[in-house]
Amino acid sequence: MSTTTYTVTGMTCSHCVAAVTEEVSKLPGVTEAQVDLASGQVTISSQSPLDDATVREAVEEAGYELVAS
Amino acid sequence: MSTTTYTVTGMTCSHCVAAVTEEVSKLPGVTEAQVDLASGQVTISSQSPLDDATVREAVEEAGYELVAS
Repeated sequence: MSTTTYTVTGMTCSHCVAAVTEEVSKLPGVTEAQVDLASGQVTISSQSPLDDATVREAVEEAGYELVAS
Repeated sequence: MSTTTYTVTGMTCSHCVAAVTEEVSKLPGVTEAQVDLASGQVTISSQSPLDDATVREAVEEAGYELVAS
């Protein structure tokens, strides 16, 4: 198991949280995704470590930006 | 035909705009709904004048607040 916390910018409301959660949860091996709107922190648990580029792509697909991990 | 512009608070992103547009468009007789995120203005066209309380209810159902019409 692997758990990593990323910082995502641009989320402004619960719909944004839902969009990011949904997109990130679709990634292969992801078992849990938790998003904190106030801090922009996205914590993802997965069966094996995720590639940063893959996570970035999912976040961008949802319409937001990954700024740090 | 009747067109009225309301002011709605709490919308922060395009998902919010979509939620309000969807909810208001469901009201009986509504032919068009346009939402401007920056100003919070929601312009609704309908076959006959809408009851303010009905519009307020739809906006609240979407999770936002109607402050003026």
